[in-house]
Amino acid sequence: MAFSRYVGILTLVAGCRLPSGVLALWPIPTTLETGMTAVTISPTFYFDVQVTSAPADLHEAVSQSQYYLENDKLGRLVVGRGANDTTALASAKILSKLTLSLTSSAAAEPIASEAVKPLGTRSEEYALTIPADGSAATLTANSTLGLYRGLTTFNQLFYYYGGVTYTLLAPIVITDTPAYPFRGLALDTSRNYYPVADILRTLDAMSWVKINTFHWHITDSQSFPLEIAQYPELAMNGAYSAQEVYTASDVQYIVQYAAARGIDVMMEIDTPGHTAIIAATYPEYVACFDATPWSQYANEPPAGQLRFALPEVINFTASMLSDVAKTLPSYYFSTGGDELNTNCYANDYLTQQQLNSTGMTLNGALDAFTQTTHGALIAEGKTPVVWEEMVLNWNITLSNETIVMVWISSADAAAVAERGFRIVQAPSNYFYLDCGAGEWLGDDPAGNSWCDPFKTWSEAYTFDPLANLTEAQYGLVLGGEQALWSEQSGPQNVDPIVWPRAASSAEIFWSGKQPTGAALNVTEALPRLHDVRYRMVQRGINAIPLQPHWCAIRPDACDLYA
Amino acid sequence: MAFSRYVGILTLVAGCRLPSGVLALWPIPTTLETGMTAVTISPTFYFDVQVTSAPADLHEAVSQSQYYLENDKLGRLVVGRGANDTTALASAKILSKLTLSLTSSAAAEPIASEAVKPLGTRSEEYALTIPADGSAATLTANSTLGLYRGLTTFNQLFYYYGGVTYTLLAPIVITDTPAYPFRGLALDTSRNYYPVADILRTLDAMSWVKINTFHWHITDSQSFPLEIAQYPELAMNGAYSAQEVYTASDVQYIVQYAAARGIDVMMEIDTPGHTAIIAATYPEYVACFDATPWSQYANEPPAGQLRFALPEVINFTASMLSDVAKTLPSYYFSTGGDELNTNCYANDYLTQQQLNSTGMTLNGALDAFTQTTHGALIAEGKTPVVWEEMVLNWNITLSNETIVMVWISSADAAAVAERGFRIVQAPSNYFYLDCGAGEWLGDDPAGNSWCDPFKTWSEAYTFDPLANLTEAQYGLVLGGEQALWSEQSGPQNVDPIVWPRAASSAEIFWSGKQPTGAALNVTEALPRLHDVRYRMVQRGINAIPLQPHWCAIRPDACDLYA
Repeated sequence: MAFSRYVGILTLVAGCRLPSGVLALWPIPTTLETGMTAVTISPTFYFDVQVTSAPADLHEAVSQSQYYLENDKLGRLVVGRGANDTTALASAKILSKLTLSLTSSAAAEPIASEAVKPLGTRSEEYALTIPADGSAATLTANSTLGLYRGLTTFNQLFYYYGGVTYTLLAPIVITDTPAYPFRGLALDTSRNYYPVADILRTLDAMSWVKINTFHWHITDSQSFPLEIAQYPELAMNGAYSAQEVYTASDVQYIVQYAAARGIDVMMEIDTPGHTAIIAATYPEYVACFDATPWSQYANEPPAGQLRFALPEVINFTASMLSDVAKTLPSYYFSTGGDELNTNCYANDYLTQQQLNSTGMTLNGALDAFTQTTHGALIAEGKTPVVWEEMVLNWNITLSNETIVMVWISSADAAAVAERGFRIVQAPSNYFYLDCGAGEWLGDDPAGNSWCDPFKTWSEAYTFDPLANLTEAQYGLVLGGEQALWSEQSGPQNVDPIVWPRAASSAEIFWSGKQPTGAALNVTEALPRLHDVRYRMVQRGINAIPLQPHWCAIRPDACDLYA
Repeated sequence: MAFSRYVGILTLVAGCRLPSGVLALWPIPTTLETGMTAVTISPTFYFDVQVTSAPADLHEAVSQSQYYLENDKLGRLVVGRGANDTTALASAKILSKLTLSLTSSAAAEPIASEAVKPLGTRSEEYALTIPADGSAATLTANSTLGLYRGLTTFNQLFYYYGGVTYTLLAPIVITDTPAYPFRGLALDTSRNYYPVADILRTLDAMSWVKINTFHWHITDSQSFPLEIAQYPELAMNGAYSAQEVYTASDVQYIVQYAAARGIDVMMEIDTPGHTAIIAATYPEYVACFDATPWSQYANEPPAGQLRFALPEVINFTASMLSDVAKTLPSYYFSTGGDELNTNCYANDYLTQQQLNSTGMTLNGALDAFTQTTHGALIAEGKTPVVWEEMVLNWNITLSNETIVMVWISSADAAAVAERGFRIVQAPSNYFYLDCGAGEWLGDDPAGNSWCDPFKTWSEAYTFDPLANLTEAQYGLVLGGEQALWSEQSGPQNVDPIVWPRAASSAEIFWSGKQPTGAALNVTEALPRLHDVRYRMVQRGINAIPLQPHWCAIRPDACDLYA
């Protein structure tokens, strides 16, 4: 991909820090050059889509970008919120259009198709220029997905004061490409249910910071809100109510909505643990269902795990997983595999009978279960994704293609890498958004969050995706994600508990480093993250203030040693 | 006050625990007797107000109660959400009205007048009966305020299933009176601003759990959002923006809205610390304004404290405080007094010059400042309220009537009591709602919340208002409050960070104990608090789930040792 380089008077952002509240892109692009000229958006500004057979979702993305350009109305985060810019704006050049084009003249694919291609084959890169002379801005990419990423950047360039939408830093030249292909957010919709509208709003916010994977932990032991055509009883009996179900059409709508925003939906149906509620439909498939004391059989109530040694359970699970997976465009599907409790099977008659009659060990049975269920997914063209225990705690033969999610501790990535698997970094000690909210179990007033303390955006931001890995292993790291587990969350707090914190991993895995080449740095990042938060609020997301507003408009004034 | 006792077949709730999800009052009343008969609300149900010259706000309260009765539509928190109640409901008696009356035939005062009387002189008690035979329910009280409290209880008695609003436990006989006169919630509207609508919504939720004091920490060092007629520049220069101001009419509207819901607004203008932003208007009144490093001069940025030794500052402060206080109906006004940093004055020329010329110590100057500012409030008929440092860290002569708020630690109440002052319990180690959200200062990614960990509802619920006090000192405890400091809060998260947690102190200070006489107990309380939360959600408050919904409809199943 070759971009013609802009040859104007530019400030190369290398070794220097941009004035805060002037340019606050997030994630920060790969290269960034800026000038010192004010440019305002023309009242007749338009997006000139010079794309052959532009797909409908590109036109929709352009309309959305136009909407944000007109409605963000975000004042710069400085004292006065832009009141001091009026002199510069009086002599500003006027930008009349942004021209979008692809580097190839081949017919463009929809964003939604580009977004769900295999990791490593998507083209998210783009080049964006805003000239200082009022001539057309340009956005160029190899794919509609790249154009989409560029549009989200374009919208972050502009501020509003006194009826004028503007930037002060033209000419602006950006080239941008992600450091990692997988940049996710995980949401658990089983412990508590989230209406579809809340998921759509979350997808919007994800798209603004270039998160490209929605890891949908859709079921768990507490509820089974997923309607599956071939197994309708699972949701009928397992959802919290008939209203708290993701119907097949809901899922398709969410998947399509996500894909049009550059987001792949990687669904997880956690097995063989985290499945107690399946007993409401198939009691004979579940061991130790609701056994007490629950803590002897599960990490949280209710106890209950699939009897994975039984042939009928293997068949059911393989069939159910592939029935779901084949309805989804994503190449990736997670079968979970975390927190399997062996006590659950120790006195389970059906399991022990099966093990005795076959001479299998529990590990052997789990291996057989996994090979069959994963085999069913692979037969559908899917790549299985599992939690780390499946490679670290059990001796199971997994396809080399299997992707392993590290969650218990960031220290565990090295052991996963040693086994040669590709990694998604989701370590609880940096990335779990639910940590720090206190014990949720009853009758434990002195209890604390199991993964206390709260993971601030800045703690998360210090995560090093390559820590403890050898250079030869770096290529195994596909990216990472922050995760919201919903024991104490629901639609009531999803916005404030997720945003703007989840932007931390979005930048770690998109940018990797600053445009200067320096490592990411919390002090540099904070003013930009304030900007993310204030823009989210303007767009209707209940993102929390990270600091008093006094601090947000005075970059660095509230640093620990300021 | 004499109530005729209901003489039916009753289950006296003594020594036994009510079936969960059947009756979930919060705060739990003083006495409570229940039967086992289902009673449904008639489609023509009405409130029969048998009150001479019933004030307009009582009629409004009745309309609100009617609205909740019709619109709460809360299913019982049991599996099936009431589906198993249909048999009982088929033969249920039908309740046609609730008769409200006062014990005295004297002309009734408005709720809003009763709510702002001096502590100890308000009558909040009431008696409520729901007969089992379908005859009229009755609510009796000494005051319209008592009737208001009874209405909030009445609304908590009913559940909804399949088009029917009902209770299963008639006859119900309740008598109820608060254990403590002061039950508050504090909100800081300076670090970040809350629109009026968010405050009104919070007042509504407070009223549902019988909280009777809104402690409005309206100003601080970061912003001064209060419009004061005599000092308009303070808000003009000190508010975050012209839109982020509580105008005089906003304040009156909030105060009236609160009072009509039985809530007294106790405003705090924190002095002489926490006043940096006054420098935006009167730079000569503020020492060490925005001095760096801020940590040398203040507990958080920006530094800046009133030059309380200067006569003109004393006059200004006394005048400003009394100008504000006289617009408010409350007998109580807080002058703050926390976290005064003496470094700020050590090299402050104007302060040192004044001390030198008068021969006063800094303590002496603070004493003089306090006596004058408090004197101005007392002259307006107000009782001053201060934070604990004013009696524990300084040697100041305060009026015996002064109320002292304990905040640094619950252990400090004993020292305040030793000095003979009345106490409001607001200890950070139990009641600060902002704790546990991580460090908010910049450039400190490993930093943690200063008052970590998060104070769960159950930790707060174990607070003993009389701990470490002698019996002779018990009478000094007026009550207590939970508090939200807003470094990391705003309208985006006020609901989920406050609710349902702030109901914990509401019950501690209203109920004090269970109707059985036993101490409050987190295991007994949890199912009822789930009920509070679910009802709040039905009424539009974004209260967080305390547990997975699976747990909420299965009382005790998710206890630590269940």
